[in-house]
Amino acid sequence: MTFVRNAWYVAGWSSEFGRALTPLTIMEEDIVVFRSESGRAVALTDECPHKRLPLSKGRLIGDSLQCGYHGMTFDCDGACVRVPGQTNLPSSARVRSYPLHEARDILWIWMGEAEKADPALVFDMAAFDDPRWAPHQGDALQIESNYLALADNLCDPAHVSFVHPTTLGNPESEDVPIDCAREGRTVITSRWIRNAPPVGFFKAFGNFHGPVDRWHYYYLHAPCVAVIDFGSAASEAAIGEDERDKGVRLFALHFLTPVTETQTIDHWMHLRNIGLDDAGMGARMNEQFRLAFAEDKEILEAIQQREAKPPARRPVRLAVDRGPNFLRRIVAEMLEEESEPAKETAAVQAAS
Amino acid sequence: MTFVRNAWYVAGWSSEFGRALTPLTIMEEDIVVFRSESGRAVALTDECPHKRLPLSKGRLIGDSLQCGYHGMTFDCDGACVRVPGQTNLPSSARVRSYPLHEARDILWIWMGEAEKADPALVFDMAAFDDPRWAPHQGDALQIESNYLALADNLCDPAHVSFVHPTTLGNPESEDVPIDCAREGRTVITSRWIRNAPPVGFFKAFGNFHGPVDRWHYYYLHAPCVAVIDFGSAASEAAIGEDERDKGVRLFALHFLTPVTETQTIDHWMHLRNIGLDDAGMGARMNEQFRLAFAEDKEILEAIQQREAKPPARRPVRLAVDRGPNFLRRIVAEMLEEESEPAKETAAVQAAS
Amino acid sequence: MTFVRNAWYVAGWSSEFGRALTPLTIMEEDIVVFRSESGRAVALTDECPHKRLPLSKGRLIGDSLQCGYHGMTFDCDGACVRVPGQTNLPSSARVRSYPLHEARDILWIWMGEAEKADPALVFDMAAFDDPRWAPHQGDALQIESNYLALADNLCDPAHVSFVHPTTLGNPESEDVPIDCAREGRTVITSRWIRNAPPVGFFKAFGNFHGPVDRWHYYYLHAPCVAVIDFGSAASEAAIGEDERDKGVRLFALHFLTPVTETQTIDHWMHLRNIGLDDAGMGARMNEQFRLAFAEDKEILEAIQQREAKPPARRPVRLAVDRGPNFLRRIVAEMLEEESEPAKETAAVQAAS
Repeated sequence: MTFVRNAWYVAGWSSEFGRALTPLTIMEEDIVVFRSESGRAVALTDECPHKRLPLSKGRLIGDSLQCGYHGMTFDCDGACVRVPGQTNLPSSARVRSYPLHEARDILWIWMGEAEKADPALVFDMAAFDDPRWAPHQGDALQIESNYLALADNLCDPAHVSFVHPTTLGNPESEDVPIDCAREGRTVITSRWIRNAPPVGFFKAFGNFHGPVDRWHYYYLHAPCVAVIDFGSAASEAAIGEDERDKGVRLFALHFLTPVTETQTIDHWMHLRNIGLDDAGMGARMNEQFRLAFAEDKEILEAIQQREAKPPARRPVRLAVDRGPNFLRRIVAEMLEEESEPAKETAAVQAAS
Repeated sequence: MTFVRNAWYVAGWSSEFGRALTPLTIMEEDIVVFRSESGRAVALTDECPHKRLPLSKGRLIGDSLQCGYHGMTFDCDGACVRVPGQTNLPSSARVRSYPLHEARDILWIWMGEAEKADPALVFDMAAFDDPRWAPHQGDALQIESNYLALADNLCDPAHVSFVHPTTLGNPESEDVPIDCAREGRTVITSRWIRNAPPVGFFKAFGNFHGPVDRWHYYYLHAPCVAVIDFGSAASEAAIGEDERDKGVRLFALHFLTPVTETQTIDHWMHLRNIGLDDAGMGARMNEQFRLAFAEDKEILEAIQQREAKPPARRPVRLAVDRGPNFLRRIVAEMLEEESEPAKETAAVQAAS
Repeated sequence: MTFVRNAWYVAGWSSEFGRALTPLTIMEEDIVVFRSESGRAVALTDECPHKRLPLSKGRLIGDSLQCGYHGMTFDCDGACVRVPGQTNLPSSARVRSYPLHEARDILWIWMGEAEKADPALVFDMAAFDDPRWAPHQGDALQIESNYLALADNLCDPAHVSFVHPTTLGNPESEDVPIDCAREGRTVITSRWIRNAPPVGFFKAFGNFHGPVDRWHYYYLHAPCVAVIDFGSAASEAAIGEDERDKGVRLFALHFLTPVTETQTIDHWMHLRNIGLDDAGMGARMNEQFRLAFAEDKEILEAIQQREAKPPARRPVRLAVDRGPNFLRRIVAEMLEEESEPAKETAAVQAAS
């Protein structure tokens, strides 16, 4: 397993959850999500400890979740509160409850040790509260690929020229070098394409009539949150790297949720600094994003299918792999850190 | 493998078989069934010993079964009677013939040692010959589940309140204790729910206007035959436990046939002691049973799917598991008994 | 793996390939085929050595194949000629190029050591250039079966009586003995059925009014090319075995291409010595062949499905297996021969 557990992941958009028992799979774990009578989101293991029936096949009685097979009933903390036909409740009869956090119309879930689930670690950005920015939700895109291949893709501006030639890229950027840096657990890859024709997206939304300067900054907050800061400005304006707000600027956000080793859900959305009064612009931009992300999906799924076979030859490493290499190193560090307690426990046991 | 071989299993309703070559899979074994010219049912291994083509892809010539690839031909005992193009018949060229028994419009097959296939062991019940009872065939319900999980379910009246709330159960029975006993290789679980509203089934067929006494007796004749004796009588009649014939009483029969480790066919039917002159009542009752058994199917298949994964936590044992626990012990005894000859053989070999 | 690599296999009919990037799988290897600007067919490994994306998801720029993920570009020999964003090309960055040969509107591919790919070894027959014969292409029939089971079938005239009773065979041949011989790497099986009613195919195309002499000669050039010489002549003409041109005579050709261990494509076609002026006769004959080969497909796929299980009993060997037995021996010899270089290499390494 390659899953980093001590991190917040997107369980879904807030609007996806209500009183219905909604089954999810995250990191191969089956989870049922519902809202209590007060509206608070609850996430429990979606498996009755008696006969393994998914609890999502049962029913909600007030704030209690009743199994659909023999009526074992659990509260919102996962404690068993009733076993029909017997008065004593087995002490082991409980299901796991997952820490949740809800903000910005997104429900976040913590898959690791509950005591480390610090809400301050949930991703956020100031633009959400900035009146110069408009957020707009996108989709939950299911991709048959390991989540790290998606994360690689989000440390990799180079693919844009080839995978998205009609929307987000064009041939002008093909040979432009990429800057790459690591800051803590964030990988930052970026490049500027100066004095070139606008790409399809900015033709549609930028109203440009001459050459533009275009930028792509990819911030990958390991393991699973990506912010893509990209935009364009007329080249004649000659804006500096820190003056991006003067151009047409977007933040495309991707929140990756590993479902299994070979399936990932990408909840994506964007924020924009133009057309704040244009109620339909967010939806129109999403149409372009859908085209582009379907192109990523096709590439990543084709590669995932190949993983079932040995490679045709030894893989080649290229200069554009620096960002993904940083990412893989950070993930390896996080996985090693998560295995530390196990080591400590082993050391204690060996000493006693 | 968890299959008890020395037992009679239902191959199908008699009406399912004729001169057509009908392929079946029972306990992972491929079997072809047909009727001889005299109408006698025949069951042979459905695989030519030459190239492994299913014999069911061949054709019947009188009482001989000819392979569709090179014409090897077998009689109703499985002996090879012709090899086209050669005059000598290889002595090893035969296929297995399975003992069959046909009664009550049901074709039974014996999957174990042929010399133990005693027709006296075929399930039967006196009600078939009793003019106060009307039998009615149901369906062959295919369930993607190991057969023992189904058998568990048929030692388990407790599930009725939760799985079948609109047909066979209602909340009145949720906490009523269950009696449980073992008699030889039969598990008997039962309970009476006194002075309660009738369940959906008996509302439809019992014409009750007040509270009823309702009973459920589950007789599981291990490994694969279940008789469910259930019914209702007006509570004011205050019938005793042995006076069930005074009420509206049914026997629901389930004959489980293991197809593979993860698939079972449940041939179900019923006998009733009311509406003997109502030609349509059996079919109307079957509509209710179909609803209920589809609910079982959904539960059991959801659980079977989970078996591909390790459980989320250590299973909890409940009081309602007593019946299934008896069943599993009986099956373990039967499996051990079937492995005895192998032990004896091994002992003889070790001694010689 | 049971694949004989040092042999020419049919990649497809010439008409299947053009400027489009056409993905194929042969012997579990993913291959992309396209025509260069000059029309020459090219076959490369269909997998970029960088991230494993199928190159068939990229695009052709002149005679260069560009990967659709990061733009790595390869020439028709498989050499990397461009890596966007960097000037040095990694020396290991190449893909395999497969030897091809095109003749008779068929594209042949060599799956083994390139230096052994002698075009003189490509199957051909004089009838293609003989004005008394008309060739006609058939289909690419995909069969879910190991290729050797198909090859067995093409050393096995005995199956015709049973598998193709309405088209190519009839009961008259059931017990007629089969001659069998090996000449180098060719298995020849044959028989004459004298003085019998014509089979369906020759009823349709032979205009026979009385009994005929019918012949079947199967030439299996191991591992994957079969020529079936079959035909009929009026029995009263009493033609000799070497006078087959006096009858209605066909060559049915089968070119087997192993896709995986359990899937094969059979490119089949025929040549005929009648109806040379009848432009529609080839297509009408193909209709009969389609019926017959669909019957083979059904048999072979049913057998392949059984291979997932152990056999019901020890296989029986029959007289009709002599042809397939020859074939299997030849294939074993070819496989052993292909492993020789490995042995030599090992010997050299052990000595040094």
